[in-house]
Amino acid sequence: MNFADKLLEEIEKFQNPSCIGLDPRIEDIPDFLKKGGLVQSLFDFNKTIVDATFDIVPAYKVQIAFYEKYKIEGIKAFQETINYLKNKNKMVIVDAKRNDIGPTAEAYSSAFLSPSGFDVDALTVNPYLGIDGVKPFIEDAKKYGKGIFVLVKTSNPSSGDFQDKILESGERLYEAVGKQVQKWGEGSEGEKGYGIVGAVVGATYPEQAKVLRKIMPKSIILVPGYGAQGGGAKETIPNFNEDGQGAIVHSARGIIFAYKADPYKSKFKPEEFHLAAREAAISMKKDLTEVIKNR
Amino acid sequence: MNFADKLLEEIEKFQNPSCIGLDPRIEDIPDFLKKGGLVQSLFDFNKTIVDATFDIVPAYKVQIAFYEKYKIEGIKAFQETINYLKNKNKMVIVDAKRNDIGPTAEAYSSAFLSPSGFDVDALTVNPYLGIDGVKPFIEDAKKYGKGIFVLVKTSNPSSGDFQDKILESGERLYEAVGKQVQKWGEGSEGEKGYGIVGAVVGATYPEQAKVLRKIMPKSIILVPGYGAQGGGAKETIPNFNEDGQGAIVHSARGIIFAYKADPYKSKFKPEEFHLAAREAAISMKKDLTEVIKNR
Repeated sequence: MNFADKLLEEIEKFQNPSCIGLDPRIEDIPDFLKKGGLVQSLFDFNKTIVDATFDIVPAYKVQIAFYEKYKIEGIKAFQETINYLKNKNKMVIVDAKRNDIGPTAEAYSSAFLSPSGFDVDALTVNPYLGIDGVKPFIEDAKKYGKGIFVLVKTSNPSSGDFQDKILESGERLYEAVGKQVQKWGEGSEGEKGYGIVGAVVGATYPEQAKVLRKIMPKSIILVPGYGAQGGGAKETIPNFNEDGQGAIVHSARGIIFAYKADPYKSKFKPEEFHLAAREAAISMKKDLTEVIKNR
Repeated sequence: MNFADKLLEEIEKFQNPSCIGLDPRIEDIPDFLKKGGLVQSLFDFNKTIVDATFDIVPAYKVQIAFYEKYKIEGIKAFQETINYLKNKNKMVIVDAKRNDIGPTAEAYSSAFLSPSGFDVDALTVNPYLGIDGVKPFIEDAKKYGKGIFVLVKTSNPSSGDFQDKILESGERLYEAVGKQVQKWGEGSEGEKGYGIVGAVVGATYPEQAKVLRKIMPKSIILVPGYGAQGGGAKETIPNFNEDGQGAIVHSARGIIFAYKADPYKSKFKPEEFHLAAREAAISMKKDLTEVIKNR
Protein backbone atom coordinates (compact mmCIF):
# COMPACT_ATOMS: atom_id res chain seq x y z
CA MET A 1 0.00 0.00 0.00
CA ASN A 2 1.77 3.14 -1.19
CA PHE A 3 1.16 6.80 -0.31
CA ALA A 4 -1.44 7.16 -3.06
CA ASP A 5 -3.39 4.14 -1.80
CA LYS A 6 -3.40 5.56 1.70
CA LEU A 7 -4.55 8.98 0.58
CA LEU A 8 -7.26 7.62 -1.71
CA GLU A 9 -8.46 5.32 1.05
CA GLU A 10 -8.80 8.28 3.42
CA ILE A 11 -10.62 10.28 0.75
CA GLU A 12 -12.96 7.32 0.29
CA LYS A 13 -13.47 6.93 4.03
CA PHE A 14 -14.48 10.56 4.51
CA GLN A 15 -16.16 10.75 1.11
CA ASN A 16 -14.30 14.00 0.71
CA PRO A 17 -11.60 14.78 -1.90
CA SER A 18 -10.38 17.89 -0.13
CA CYS A 19 -7.86 19.01 2.44
CA ILE A 20 -7.63 22.01 4.72
CA GLY A 21 -4.63 24.29 4.69
CA LEU A 22 -3.30 25.21 8.11
CA ASP A 23 -1.71 28.49 7.08
CA PRO A 24 -2.20 30.71 10.11
CA ARG A 25 -1.45 34.41 9.87
CA ILE A 26 -1.22 35.99 13.27
CA GLU A 27 -3.08 39.09 12.08
CA ASP A 28 -6.11 36.98 11.10
CA ILE A 29 -6.25 34.90 14.28
CA PRO A 30 -9.01 36.00 16.69
CA ASP A 31 -7.71 38.24 19.48
CA PHE A 32 -8.86 35.95 22.29
CA LEU A 33 -6.29 33.39 21.10
CA LYS A 34 -3.38 35.79 21.28
CA LYS A 35 -2.69 35.79 24.99
CA GLY A 36 -0.20 32.94 25.39
CA GLY A 37 2.58 34.05 23.07
CA LEU A 38 3.18 33.31 19.41
CA VAL A 39 3.80 29.53 19.50
CA GLN A 40 0.76 29.00 21.70
CA SER A 41 -1.45 31.23 19.55
CA LEU A 42 -0.54 29.57 16.27
CA PHE A 43 -0.84 26.10 17.75
CA ASP A 44 -4.10 26.77 19.61
CA PHE A 45 -5.60 28.19 16.45
CA ASN A 46 -4.58 25.12 14.43
CA LYS A 47 -5.64 22.69 17.14
CA THR A 48 -9.09 24.26 17.39
CA ILE A 49 -9.53 24.08 13.62
CA VAL A 50 -8.39 20.45 13.56
CA ASP A 51 -10.66 19.49 16.47
CA ALA A 52 -13.60 21.01 14.61
CA THR A 53 -12.88 19.37 11.24
CA PHE A 54 -10.92 16.12 11.61
CA ASP A 55 -14.08 14.03 11.26
CA ILE A 56 -14.77 15.66 7.89
CA VAL A 57 -11.48 15.89 5.98
CA PRO A 58 -8.96 13.19 5.07
CA ALA A 59 -5.83 15.34 5.17
CA TYR A 60 -4.31 18.68 6.08
CA LYS A 61 -1.81 20.73 4.14
CA VAL A 62 0.59 22.81 6.18
CA GLN A 63 2.29 25.72 4.40
CA ILE A 64 5.67 26.11 6.12
CA ALA A 65 6.19 29.72 4.93
CA PHE A 66 3.66 30.97 7.49
CA TYR A 67 5.71 29.35 10.26
CA GLU A 68 9.18 30.10 8.89
CA LYS A 69 8.12 33.74 8.95
CA TYR A 70 8.35 33.56 12.75
CA LYS A 71 11.74 31.83 12.77
CA ILE A 72 12.43 29.38 15.63
CA GLU A 73 9.12 30.13 17.35
CA GLY A 74 7.27 29.51 14.12
CA ILE A 75 9.02 26.20 13.52
CA LYS A 76 8.05 25.14 17.05
CA ALA A 77 4.39 25.81 16.22
CA PHE A 78 4.87 23.95 12.92
CA GLN A 79 6.31 20.93 14.73
CA GLU A 80 3.53 20.94 17.35
CA THR A 81 0.88 21.20 14.66
CA ILE A 82 2.34 18.23 12.80
CA ASN A 83 2.58 16.20 15.99
CA TYR A 84 -1.04 16.98 16.79
CA LEU A 85 -2.23 15.96 13.31
CA LYS A 86 -0.31 12.69 13.54
CA ASN A 87 -1.79 11.93 16.93
CA LYS A 88 -5.20 12.44 15.35
CA ASN A 89 -4.18 9.96 12.63
CA LYS A 90 -4.57 12.59 9.93
CA MET A 91 -2.44 12.62 6.79
CA VAL A 92 -0.10 15.59 6.57
CA ILE A 93 1.06 17.24 3.36
CA VAL A 94 3.71 19.89 3.86
CA ASP A 95 3.73 22.61 1.24
CA ALA A 96 7.35 23.76 1.14
CA LYS A 97 8.18 23.70 -2.60
CA ARG A 98 11.72 22.66 -1.71
CA ASN A 99 14.35 22.25 -4.41
CA ASP A 100 18.11 22.10 -4.69
CA ILE A 101 21.00 20.18 -6.25
CA GLY A 102 21.20 16.47 -5.34
CA PRO A 103 23.18 16.39 -2.08
CA THR A 104 21.27 19.40 -0.74
CA ALA A 105 17.91 18.02 -1.86
CA GLU A 106 18.85 14.94 0.21
CA ALA A 107 19.05 17.15 3.30
CA TYR A 108 15.63 18.70 2.54
CA SER A 109 14.15 15.31 1.89
CA SER A 110 15.50 14.03 5.17
CA ALA A 111 14.05 17.08 6.92
CA PHE A 112 10.51 16.34 5.79
CA LEU A 113 10.15 12.69 4.74
CA SER A 114 12.52 10.67 6.91
CA PRO A 115 11.71 9.29 10.37
CA SER A 116 14.41 11.54 11.83
CA GLY A 117 12.83 14.61 10.24
CA PHE A 118 9.31 16.07 10.46
CA ASP A 119 8.28 12.70 9.02
CA VAL A 120 5.14 13.87 7.20
CA ASP A 121 3.20 12.00 4.52
CA ALA A 122 4.02 14.18 1.55
CA LEU A 123 5.92 17.25 0.42
CA THR A 124 5.58 19.67 -2.48
CA VAL A 125 8.71 19.96 -4.66
CA ASN A 126 9.77 22.48 -7.31
CA PRO A 127 11.10 20.82 -10.51
CA TYR A 128 13.23 23.66 -11.94
CA LEU A 129 16.51 21.80 -11.21
CA GLY A 130 15.52 18.63 -13.06
CA ILE A 131 15.61 15.03 -11.99
CA ASP A 132 18.70 15.04 -9.80
CA GLY A 133 17.07 17.66 -7.58
CA VAL A 134 13.86 15.60 -7.35
CA LYS A 135 15.31 12.09 -7.09
CA PRO A 136 16.31 12.27 -3.40
CA PHE A 137 12.66 13.03 -2.53
CA ILE A 138 11.40 10.16 -4.68
CA GLU A 139 13.88 7.76 -3.12
CA ASP A 140 12.91 8.71 0.42
CA ALA A 141 9.23 8.57 -0.52
CA LYS A 142 9.75 5.02 -1.75
CA LYS A 143 11.76 4.08 1.32
CA TYR A 144 9.40 5.54 3.89
CA GLY A 145 5.98 5.10 2.28
CA LYS A 146 5.63 8.80 1.51
CA GLY A 147 4.69 10.89 -1.52
CA ILE A 148 5.65 14.09 -3.29
CA PHE A 149 3.70 16.63 -5.33
CA VAL A 150 5.76 18.28 -8.05
CA LEU A 151 4.77 21.79 -9.16
CA VAL A 152 3.53 21.52 -12.73
CA LYS A 153 1.05 24.36 -13.33
CA THR A 154 0.70 26.59 -10.28
CA SER A 155 -2.46 28.50 -9.38
CA ASN A 156 -1.07 32.05 -9.37
CA PRO A 157 -1.79 34.66 -12.07
CA SER A 158 1.81 34.76 -13.36
CA SER A 159 2.33 31.01 -13.40
CA GLY A 160 2.39 31.29 -17.18
CA ASP A 161 5.51 33.48 -17.25
CA PHE A 162 7.66 30.38 -17.65
CA GLN A 163 5.32 27.40 -17.23
CA ASP A 164 3.31 28.36 -20.35
CA LYS A 165 6.34 28.90 -22.57
CA ILE A 166 5.85 27.13 -25.89
CA LEU A 167 8.73 24.80 -26.63
CA GLU A 168 10.30 24.05 -29.98
CA SER A 169 8.35 20.76 -29.93
CA GLY A 170 5.08 22.71 -29.82
CA GLU A 171 4.21 21.68 -26.30
CA ARG A 172 4.11 23.99 -23.28
CA LEU A 173 6.73 23.79 -20.55
CA TYR A 174 4.10 22.58 -18.06
CA GLU A 175 3.33 19.68 -20.41
CA ALA A 176 7.01 18.77 -20.59
CA VAL A 177 7.19 18.88 -16.79
CA GLY A 178 4.00 16.81 -16.55
CA LYS A 179 5.51 14.16 -18.81
CA GLN A 180 8.53 13.90 -16.56
CA VAL A 181 6.34 13.70 -13.46
CA GLN A 182 4.50 10.78 -15.04
CA LYS A 183 7.81 9.11 -15.93
CA TRP A 184 9.33 9.70 -12.49
CA GLY A 185 6.37 7.93 -10.88
CA GLU A 186 6.45 4.88 -13.15
CA GLY A 187 6.86 1.63 -11.25
CA SER A 188 5.69 3.13 -7.96
CA GLU A 189 1.98 2.50 -8.60
CA GLY A 190 0.00 1.05 -5.72
CA GLU A 191 -3.10 -1.13 -5.63
CA LYS A 192 -5.32 1.67 -6.89
CA GLY A 193 -3.04 2.40 -9.82
CA TYR A 194 -1.52 5.69 -8.67
CA GLY A 195 2.17 6.37 -8.16
CA ILE A 196 3.94 8.25 -5.38
CA VAL A 197 4.93 11.20 -7.59
CA GLY A 198 1.95 13.54 -7.64
CA ALA A 199 1.54 16.94 -9.22
CA VAL A 200 0.32 20.40 -8.31
CA VAL A 201 -2.14 21.90 -10.82
CA GLY A 202 -4.05 25.07 -9.89
CA ALA A 203 -7.87 25.10 -9.88
CA THR A 204 -7.50 28.42 -11.67
CA TYR A 205 -6.37 26.66 -14.87
CA PRO A 206 -9.03 24.06 -15.81
CA GLU A 207 -8.12 23.97 -19.50
CA GLN A 208 -4.53 23.15 -18.73
CA ALA A 209 -5.69 20.58 -16.18
CA LYS A 210 -7.57 18.69 -18.90
CA VAL A 211 -4.35 18.26 -20.82
CA LEU A 212 -2.30 17.45 -17.75
CA ARG A 213 -4.73 14.84 -16.43
CA LYS A 214 -4.18 12.90 -19.68
CA ILE A 215 -0.41 13.31 -19.55
CA MET A 216 -0.23 12.12 -15.94
CA PRO A 217 -3.01 9.52 -15.56
CA LYS A 218 -1.27 7.86 -12.63
CA SER A 219 -0.37 10.93 -10.58
CA ILE A 220 -2.49 12.21 -7.73
CA ILE A 221 -3.10 15.88 -8.44
CA LEU A 222 -3.06 18.34 -5.55
CA VAL A 223 -5.31 21.23 -6.57
CA PRO A 224 -4.78 24.60 -4.89
CA GLY A 225 -6.62 27.76 -5.86
CA TYR A 226 -10.12 26.71 -4.79
CA GLY A 227 -12.03 29.45 -2.96
CA ALA A 228 -9.99 32.48 -1.98
CA GLN A 229 -7.91 32.30 -5.17
CA GLY A 230 -10.98 32.19 -7.37
CA GLY A 231 -11.30 28.57 -8.50
CA GLY A 232 -14.74 26.99 -8.06
CA ALA A 233 -15.65 23.31 -7.68
CA LYS A 234 -16.34 23.04 -11.43
CA GLU A 235 -12.86 24.29 -12.23
CA THR A 236 -11.29 21.49 -10.19
CA ILE A 237 -13.10 18.74 -12.12
CA PRO A 238 -10.61 18.28 -14.98
CA ASN A 239 -8.05 17.22 -12.37
CA PHE A 240 -10.08 14.15 -11.45
CA ASN A 241 -9.99 11.03 -13.58
CA GLU A 242 -13.21 9.75 -15.16
CA ASP A 243 -13.88 7.58 -12.10
CA GLY A 244 -13.90 10.66 -9.87
CA GLN A 245 -10.57 9.76 -8.29
CA GLY A 246 -7.01 10.96 -8.49
CA ALA A 247 -7.17 14.49 -7.10
CA ILE A 248 -7.36 16.29 -3.79
CA VAL A 249 -8.51 19.89 -3.66
CA HIS A 250 -7.02 22.27 -1.17
CA SER A 251 -8.36 25.36 0.55
CA ALA A 252 -6.73 27.35 3.35
CA ARG A 253 -7.96 30.93 3.81
CA GLY A 254 -11.48 30.06 2.64
CA ILE A 255 -11.81 27.55 5.48
CA ILE A 256 -9.66 28.63 8.41
CA PHE A 257 -10.55 32.31 8.17
CA ALA A 258 -14.15 31.72 7.03
CA TYR A 259 -15.35 33.57 10.14
CA LYS A 260 -14.04 36.80 8.63
CA ALA A 261 -15.74 36.45 5.26
CA ASP A 262 -19.19 36.15 3.71
CA PRO A 263 -21.45 34.23 4.18
CA TYR A 264 -20.07 33.23 7.59
CA LYS A 265 -19.10 36.49 9.25
CA SER A 266 -22.65 37.55 10.05
CA LYS A 267 -23.37 34.13 11.55
CA PHE A 268 -20.29 33.43 13.66
CA LYS A 269 -18.44 35.39 16.34
CA PRO A 270 -14.64 35.38 16.37
CA GLU A 271 -14.86 32.89 19.29
CA GLU A 272 -16.71 30.59 16.90
CA PHE A 273 -14.08 30.72 14.13
CA HIS A 274 -13.76 26.92 14.27
CA LEU A 275 -17.49 26.47 13.75
CA ALA A 276 -17.30 28.73 10.71
CA ALA A 277 -14.37 26.64 9.48
CA ARG A 278 -16.37 23.47 9.98
CA GLU A 279 -19.30 24.85 8.04
CA ALA A 280 -17.01 26.04 5.24
CA ALA A 281 -15.31 22.62 5.13
CA ILE A 282 -18.67 20.85 4.90
CA SER A 283 -19.76 23.25 2.18
CA MET A 284 -16.58 22.57 0.22
CA LYS A 285 -17.06 18.83 0.57
CA LYS A 286 -20.66 19.05 -0.70
CA ASP A 287 -19.70 21.38 -3.48
CA LEU A 288 -16.97 19.04 -4.74
CA THR A 289 -18.80 15.73 -4.36
CA GLU A 290 -21.87 17.10 -6.11
CA VAL A 291 -19.92 18.41 -9.05
CA ILE A 292 -17.99 15.14 -9.35
CA LYS A 293 -21.24 13.14 -9.24
CA ASN A 294 -22.95 15.28 -11.86
CA ARG A 295 -19.92 15.49 -14.07
CA MET B 1 24.12 52.43 -1.93
CA ASN B 2 22.19 49.28 -2.79
CA PHE B 3 22.91 45.63 -2.00
CA ALA B 4 25.09 45.24 -5.09
CA ASP B 5 27.21 48.27 -4.16
CA LYS B 6 27.73 46.86 -0.67
CA LEU B 7 28.70 43.43 -1.93
CA LEU B 8 31.05 44.78 -4.60
CA GLU B 9 32.64 47.09 -2.05
CA GLU B 10 33.32 44.16 0.24
CA ILE B 11 34.73 42.14 -2.66
CA GLU B 12 37.00 45.11 -3.46
CA LYS B 13 38.05 45.51 0.17
CA PHE B 14 39.09 41.87 0.52
CA GLN B 15 40.26 41.65 -3.10
CA ASN B 16 38.37 38.41 -3.22
CA PRO B 17 35.32 37.64 -5.39
CA SER B 18 34.36 34.52 -3.44
CA CYS B 19 32.25 33.41 -0.54
CA ILE B 20 32.35 30.41 1.77
CA GLY B 21 29.37 28.14 2.17
CA LEU B 22 28.56 27.25 5.76
CA ASP B 23 26.83 23.96 4.99
CA PRO B 24 27.77 21.76 7.93
CA ARG B 25 26.99 18.05 7.81
CA ILE B 26 27.26 16.49 11.22
CA GLU B 27 28.93 13.39 9.79
CA ASP B 28 31.78 15.49 8.36
CA ILE B 29 32.38 17.59 11.47
CA PRO B 30 35.46 16.50 13.45
CA ASP B 31 34.58 14.28 16.41
CA PHE B 32 36.14 16.56 19.01
CA LEU B 33 33.42 19.13 18.20
CA LYS B 34 30.57 16.73 18.82
CA LYS B 35 30.43 16.75 22.59
CA GLY B 36 28.03 19.57 23.35
CA GLY B 37 24.93 18.47 21.45
CA LEU B 38 23.79 19.21 17.92
CA VAL B 39 23.21 22.98 18.09
CA GLN B 40 26.53 23.52 19.81
CA SER B 41 28.40 21.26 17.38
CA LEU B 42 27.01 22.93 14.26
CA PHE B 43 27.53 26.40 15.66
CA ASP B 44 31.03 25.73 17.03
CA PHE B 45 32.05 24.30 13.68
CA ASN B 46 30.74 27.35 11.82
CA LYS B 47 32.20 29.80 14.33
CA THR B 48 35.63 28.23 14.09
CA ILE B 49 35.52 28.40 10.29
CA VAL B 50 34.39 32.03 10.40
CA ASP B 51 37.06 33.01 12.93
CA ALA B 52 39.70 31.48 10.65
CA THR B 53 38.48 33.09 7.44
CA PHE B 54 36.63 36.35 8.07
CA ASP B 55 39.69 38.43 7.26
CA ILE B 56 39.87 36.80 3.82
CA VAL B 57 36.35 36.55 2.41
CA PRO B 58 33.72 39.25 1.86
CA ALA B 59 30.63 37.10 2.45
CA TYR B 60 29.27 33.76 3.58
CA LYS B 61 26.51 31.71 2.03
CA VAL B 62 24.44 29.63 4.41
CA GLN B 63 22.48 26.72 2.91
CA ILE B 64 19.40 26.34 5.10
CA ALA B 65 18.70 22.73 4.03
CA PHE B 66 21.59 21.49 6.19
CA TYR B 67 19.97 23.11 9.23
CA GLU B 68 16.33 22.37 8.39
CA LYS B 69 17.39 18.72 8.30
CA TYR B 70 17.71 18.92 12.09
CA LYS B 71 14.36 20.65 12.60
CA ILE B 72 14.11 23.11 15.52
CA GLU B 73 17.63 22.37 16.75
CA GLY B 74 18.98 22.99 13.27
CA ILE B 75 17.17 26.29 12.93
CA LYS B 76 18.64 27.36 16.27
CA ALA B 77 22.13 26.69 14.91
CA PHE B 78 21.18 28.53 11.70
CA GLN B 79 20.03 31.56 13.70
CA GLU B 80 23.14 31.56 15.89
CA THR B 81 25.38 31.28 12.83
CA ILE B 82 23.67 34.24 11.19
CA ASN B 83 23.89 36.30 14.37
CA TYR B 84 27.59 35.52 14.62
CA LEU B 85 28.25 36.52 11.02
CA LYS B 86 26.39 39.79 11.50
CA ASN B 87 28.35 40.56 14.65
CA LYS B 88 31.50 40.05 12.60
CA ASN B 89 30.10 42.50 10.02
CA LYS B 90 30.08 39.87 7.33
CA MET B 91 27.53 39.83 4.54
CA VAL B 92 25.17 36.85 4.67
CA ILE B 93 23.55 35.20 1.66
CA VAL B 94 21.00 32.55 2.57
CA ASP B 95 20.61 29.83 -0.01
CA ALA B 96 17.01 28.67 0.42
CA LYS B 97 15.65 28.72 -3.17
CA ARG B 98 12.28 29.77 -1.77
CA ASN B 99 9.28 30.16 -4.05
CA ASP B 100 5.51 30.31 -3.79
CA ILE B 101 2.43 32.23 -4.91
CA GLY B 102 2.35 35.93 -3.99
CA PRO B 103 0.87 36.02 -0.47
CA THR B 104 2.97 33.03 0.59
CA ALA B 105 6.12 34.40 -1.02
CA GLU B 106 5.50 37.48 1.15
CA ALA B 107 5.76 35.27 4.23
CA TYR B 108 9.01 33.73 3.00
CA SER B 109 10.39 37.13 2.11
CA SER B 110 9.53 38.42 5.56
CA ALA B 111 11.22 35.35 7.09
CA PHE B 112 14.55 36.11 5.46
CA LEU B 113 14.75 39.74 4.33
CA SER B 114 12.74 41.78 6.82
CA PRO B 115 14.05 43.18 10.12
CA SER B 116 11.58 40.93 11.97
CA GLY B 117 12.91 37.85 10.18
CA PHE B 118 16.42 36.41 9.90
CA ASP B 119 17.24 39.76 8.29
CA VAL B 120 20.07 38.58 6.04
CA ASP B 121 21.60 40.45 3.11
CA ALA B 122 20.36 38.25 0.29
CA LEU B 123 18.32 35.18 -0.53
CA THR B 124 18.24 32.75 -3.44
CA VAL B 125 14.83 32.45 -5.13
CA ASN B 126 13.39 29.91 -7.59
CA PRO B 127 11.61 31.56 -10.56
CA TYR B 128 9.28 28.71 -11.66
CA LEU B 129 6.14 30.57 -10.46
CA GLY B 130 6.87 33.72 -12.46
CA ILE B 131 6.92 37.34 -11.41
CA ASP B 132 4.19 37.35 -8.78
CA GLY B 133 6.13 34.73 -6.82
CA VAL B 134 9.33 36.79 -7.07
CA LYS B 135 7.94 40.30 -6.61
CA PRO B 136 7.50 40.13 -2.81
CA PHE B 137 11.21 39.37 -2.48
CA ILE B 138 12.15 42.23 -4.81
CA GLU B 139 9.92 44.65 -2.90
CA ASP B 140 11.41 43.71 0.45
CA ALA B 141 14.90 43.84 -1.02
CA LYS B 142 14.21 47.40 -2.17
CA LYS B 143 12.67 48.36 1.16
CA TYR B 144 15.38 46.91 3.38
CA GLY B 145 18.53 47.35 1.26
CA LYS B 146 18.78 43.65 0.46
CA GLY B 147 19.25 41.53 -2.66
CA ILE B 148 18.05 38.32 -4.25
CA PHE B 149 19.68 35.76 -6.53
CA VAL B 150 17.24 34.11 -8.93
CA LEU B 151 18.06 30.59 -10.16
CA VAL B 152 18.77 30.85 -13.86
CA LYS B 153 21.14 28.01 -14.81
CA THR B 154 21.93 25.79 -11.84
CA SER B 155 25.19 23.87 -11.40
CA ASN B 156 23.82 20.32 -11.17
CA PRO B 157 24.14 17.70 -13.94
CA SER B 158 20.39 17.59 -14.69
CA SER B 159 19.86 21.35 -14.67
CA GLY B 160 19.25 21.05 -18.40
CA ASP B 161 16.15 18.86 -18.00
CA PHE B 162 13.96 21.96 -18.11
CA GLN B 163 16.34 24.94 -18.04
CA ASP B 164 17.87 23.97 -21.40
CA LYS B 165 14.54 23.43 -23.17
CA ILE B 166 14.54 25.19 -26.52
CA LEU B 167 11.59 27.51 -26.84
CA GLU B 168 9.54 28.26 -29.93
CA SER B 169 11.48 31.53 -30.17
CA GLY B 170 14.72 29.58 -30.54
CA GLU B 171 16.10 30.61 -27.19
CA ARG B 172 16.65 28.32 -24.22
CA LEU B 173 14.46 28.53 -21.13
CA TYR B 174 17.43 29.75 -19.05
CA GLU B 175 17.84 32.63 -21.51
CA ALA B 176 14.17 33.55 -21.14
CA VAL B 177 14.57 33.45 -17.36
CA GLY B 178 17.76 35.52 -17.62
CA LYS B 179 15.94 38.17 -19.64
CA GLN B 180 13.27 38.44 -16.96
CA VAL B 181 15.89 38.67 -14.23
CA GLN B 182 17.48 41.57 -16.08
CA LYS B 183 14.06 43.22 -16.46
CA TRP B 184 13.07 42.67 -12.84
CA GLY B 185 16.22 44.44 -11.70
CA GLU B 186 15.81 47.47 -13.94
CA GLY B 187 15.69 50.73 -12.03
CA SER B 188 17.33 49.26 -8.93
CA GLU B 189 20.90 49.88 -10.10
CA GLY B 190 23.30 51.33 -7.57
CA GLU B 191 26.39 53.51 -7.92
CA LYS B 192 28.39 50.70 -9.48
CA GLY B 193 25.69 49.96 -12.04
CA TYR B 194 24.36 46.69 -10.66
CA GLY B 195 20.78 46.01 -9.60
CA ILE B 196 19.44 44.15 -6.60
CA VAL B 197 18.14 41.20 -8.63
CA GLY B 198 21.08 38.86 -9.09
CA ALA B 199 21.25 35.45 -10.71
CA VAL B 200 22.59 31.98 -9.97
CA VAL B 201 24.67 30.48 -12.80
CA GLY B 202 26.69 27.32 -12.14
CA ALA B 203 30.46 27.27 -12.70
CA THR B 204 29.84 23.95 -14.40
CA TYR B 205 28.25 25.70 -17.41
CA PRO B 206 30.74 28.29 -18.73
CA GLU B 207 29.30 28.36 -22.26
CA GLN B 208 25.85 29.18 -20.97
CA ALA B 209 27.39 31.76 -18.63
CA LYS B 210 28.85 33.64 -21.61
CA VAL B 211 25.38 34.06 -23.05
CA LEU B 212 23.80 34.89 -19.70
CA ARG B 213 26.40 37.51 -18.78
CA LYS B 214 25.38 39.42 -21.91
CA ILE B 215 21.67 39.02 -21.24
CA MET B 216 22.03 40.22 -17.64
CA PRO B 217 24.83 42.83 -17.69
CA LYS B 218 23.53 44.50 -14.54
CA SER B 219 22.95 41.46 -12.35
CA ILE B 220 25.46 40.17 -9.85
CA ILE B 221 25.95 36.49 -10.62
CA LEU B 222 26.34 34.05 -7.75
CA VAL B 223 28.42 31.16 -9.06
CA PRO B 224 28.14 27.80 -7.31
CA GLY B 225 29.81 24.63 -8.53
CA TYR B 226 33.44 25.68 -7.99
CA GLY B 227 35.60 22.97 -6.43
CA ALA B 228 33.73 19.92 -5.14
CA GLN B 229 31.21 20.09 -7.99
CA GLY B 230 33.93 20.20 -10.63
CA GLY B 231 34.06 23.81 -11.81
CA GLY B 232 37.53 25.40 -11.90
CA ALA B 233 38.47 29.08 -11.68
CA LYS B 234 38.62 29.32 -15.48
CA GLU B 235 35.06 28.07 -15.77
CA THR B 236 33.80 30.88 -13.53
CA ILE B 237 35.30 33.62 -15.71
CA PRO B 238 32.42 34.07 -18.17
CA ASN B 239 30.26 35.15 -15.22
CA PHE B 240 32.41 38.22 -14.63
CA ASN B 241 32.02 41.32 -16.73
CA GLU B 242 34.96 42.61 -18.77
CA ASP B 243 36.08 44.79 -15.86
CA GLY B 244 36.43 41.71 -13.64
CA GLN B 245 33.37 42.63 -11.60
CA GLY B 246 29.82 41.42 -11.26
CA ALA B 247 30.18 37.89 -9.90
CA ILE B 248 30.85 36.11 -6.64
CA VAL B 249 32.02 32.51 -6.67
CA HIS B 250 30.89 30.14 -3.98
CA SER B 251 32.46 27.05 -2.44
CA ALA B 252 31.26 25.06 0.56
CA ARG B 253 32.54 21.49 0.85
CA GLY B 254 35.85 22.35 -0.83
CA ILE B 255 36.60 24.88 1.93
CA ILE B 256 34.89 23.83 5.15
CA PHE B 257 35.75 20.15 4.79
CA ALA B 258 39.14 20.75 3.15
CA TYR B 259 40.78 18.89 6.05
CA LYS B 260 39.27 15.64 4.77
CA ALA B 261 40.46 16.00 1.18
CA ASP B 262 43.63 16.31 -0.85
CA PRO B 263 45.92 18.22 -0.74
CA TYR B 264 45.08 19.22 2.84
CA LYS B 265 44.35 15.96 4.62
CA SER B 266 48.00 14.92 4.91
CA LYS B 267 48.93 18.33 6.28
CA PHE B 268 46.19 19.07 8.82
CA LYS B 269 44.75 17.12 11.74
CA PRO B 270 40.99 17.13 12.34
CA GLU B 271 41.62 19.61 15.17
CA GLU B 272 43.11 21.92 12.51
CA PHE B 273 40.10 21.77 10.16
CA HIS B 274 39.80 25.56 10.33
CA LEU B 275 43.42 26.02 9.27
CA ALA B 276 42.80 23.74 6.31
CA ALA B 277 39.71 25.82 5.50
CA ARG B 278 41.77 29.00 5.68
CA GLU B 279 44.38 27.61 3.35
CA ALA B 280 41.71 26.41 0.93
CA ALA B 281 40.00 29.82 1.05
CA ILE B 282 43.30 31.60 0.32
CA SER B 283 43.99 29.19 -2.51
CA MET B 284 40.54 29.85 -3.98
CA LYS B 285 41.07 33.60 -3.73
CA LYS B 286 44.47 33.39 -5.50
CA ASP B 287 43.10 31.03 -8.10
CA LEU B 288 40.23 33.37 -8.98
CA THR B 289 42.08 36.67 -8.87
CA GLU B 290 44.87 35.31 -11.04
CA VAL B 291 42.51 33.97 -13.66
CA ILE B 292 40.57 37.24 -13.69
CA LYS B 293 43.80 39.25 -14.07
CA ASN B 294 45.11 37.09 -16.91
CA ARG B 295 41.77 36.85 -18.64
